[in-house]
Amino acid sequence: MDVNEIKVIDKTVKGWLKESRDNVLRKIDTRLTVNTKSGRTDLVTNIDKQNEKFLVSKIREFDPASRILGEEGSGDDVTTTIGRVWIIDPIDGTMNFVKQRNHFAIMLALYVDGEGVLGYILDVTGNHLLSGGPQIGVFDNGQPLTKVADTPLREGLMGLSGPMVLHNDYNMVDIANQSLGMRVYGSAGIDIISVLRGELVGYISYLKPWDFGAGKILCETAGMMVTTIDGKPLGMLSSTTVLLATRRAHRDILTIVGQ
Amino acid sequence: MDVNEIKVIDKTVKGWLKESRDNVLRKIDTRLTVNTKSGRTDLVTNIDKQNEKFLVSKIREFDPASRILGEEGSGDDVTTTIGRVWIIDPIDGTMNFVKQRNHFAIMLALYVDGEGVLGYILDVTGNHLLSGGPQIGVFDNGQPLTKVADTPLREGLMGLSGPMVLHNDYNMVDIANQSLGMRVYGSAGIDIISVLRGELVGYISYLKPWDFGAGKILCETAGMMVTTIDGKPLGMLSSTTVLLATRRAHRDILTIVGQ
Repeated sequence: MDVNEIKVIDKTVKGWLKESRDNVLRKIDTRLTVNTKSGRTDLVTNIDKQNEKFLVSKIREFDPASRILGEEGSGDDVTTTIGRVWIIDPIDGTMNFVKQRNHFAIMLALYVDGEGVLGYILDVTGNHLLSGGPQIGVFDNGQPLTKVADTPLREGLMGLSGPMVLHNDYNMVDIANQSLGMRVYGSAGIDIISVLRGELVGYISYLKPWDFGAGKILCETAGMMVTTIDGKPLGMLSSTTVLLATRRAHRDILTIVGQ
Repeated sequence: MDVNEIKVIDKTVKGWLKESRDNVLRKIDTRLTVNTKSGRTDLVTNIDKQNEKFLVSKIREFDPASRILGEEGSGDDVTTTIGRVWIIDPIDGTMNFVKQRNHFAIMLALYVDGEGVLGYILDVTGNHLLSGGPQIGVFDNGQPLTKVADTPLREGLMGLSGPMVLHNDYNMVDIANQSLGMRVYGSAGIDIISVLRGELVGYISYLKPWDFGAGKILCETAGMMVTTIDGKPLGMLSSTTVLLATRRAHRDILTIVGQ
């Protein structure tokens, strides 16, 4: 895809996201319909579903030949990465959305033949949009992202999944102890924005494609490493424990995981 | 102290905090002078010290007969709670301030004969001020605080100290598991604002008087419980593990701590 085509798509997607944010904020103080999915901490609300449907309809109209992978199932049954695939997380951090009405994100990504082209993470209440991709660079609310220092683990704060710390999966307690401190924010989108801004040196969580699709594109474009927790490439259609970090912190963490 | 006198103090303090915030924001992108105190994660910067000196000078001018307890030592050596005592935390969450330039607070409290009169927690970058006390009520950016529901632990998110989770102090892992999720924000001020807004059902951390002085006044005024981790009253001049929560979550947590 050439850069001009990408810029047209980028402008279009930003329009959808603005509208999508307005829709969510308009309903943020209403009573939500909340259902559990796999367990009591895995939630979906009427807003997640409505927002996914909104984004799906925009994509269908704009790019009818593409396929859509959406968290709440209103897209397609995507089984290969061939062609254009859009990945939607209509509300990332649904628990935060339900309990806090704060600290949640809308995420969108475009992959072509398995390669990341454009990624978007929108912190809805903070009104911060991280956007871009390898051909156009990364932007923070429209301004080129400040280059993030390649900070090692022991000189930075580390974003972690709460449940994985509580189970000490992959020596997570050691990873936290070797850092300057762990932070648990409860939303992949909010954590990944923090990594992109240099507020965290990395983030680890068990994630599904819609949780890491946009973040992988943005972080790799910004010069960071995004792999499985044992350092392997991510499969775009499978769920796994993701390690996303500065190059130095990534190396430091792989050493601790392997111990 | 009568309500009119308290309102005059309240208005005065809000002016100091506005000026203090402006001072900090003006220097937020400058190179900091960072020193460690008790260890590599216990930091103080030139801004902490300057901001404490600023607040001390304002208090001295306004209330010369009072005594001042400040985190960075530019106040007095306060050994009794008799009379008017001001408590200052010039930058709460110094690690966040240093590493993120985000998620930190300025806190101020006024106690008279050991009783809380006025408390202030200012989220500097978010520009949220929680303020008030038992005689005037609690305000969120000047608006009366929305009454927080008395949510039990298992229906809420719980703010915890990262190091205490990693050591499983006081069955902290069980507390986290019984909640809908733990959050680790790294600043008592930011955590306590989240509790006051109903985003968290409670918060536990080892705290010093300047970390909990304002929060105790605001949370108790808002109908929440603030005690030591074993349910005893807090001593205003001593450091301890503090449990601050809705009434129901407080009861739930004391049961888990006692197991």
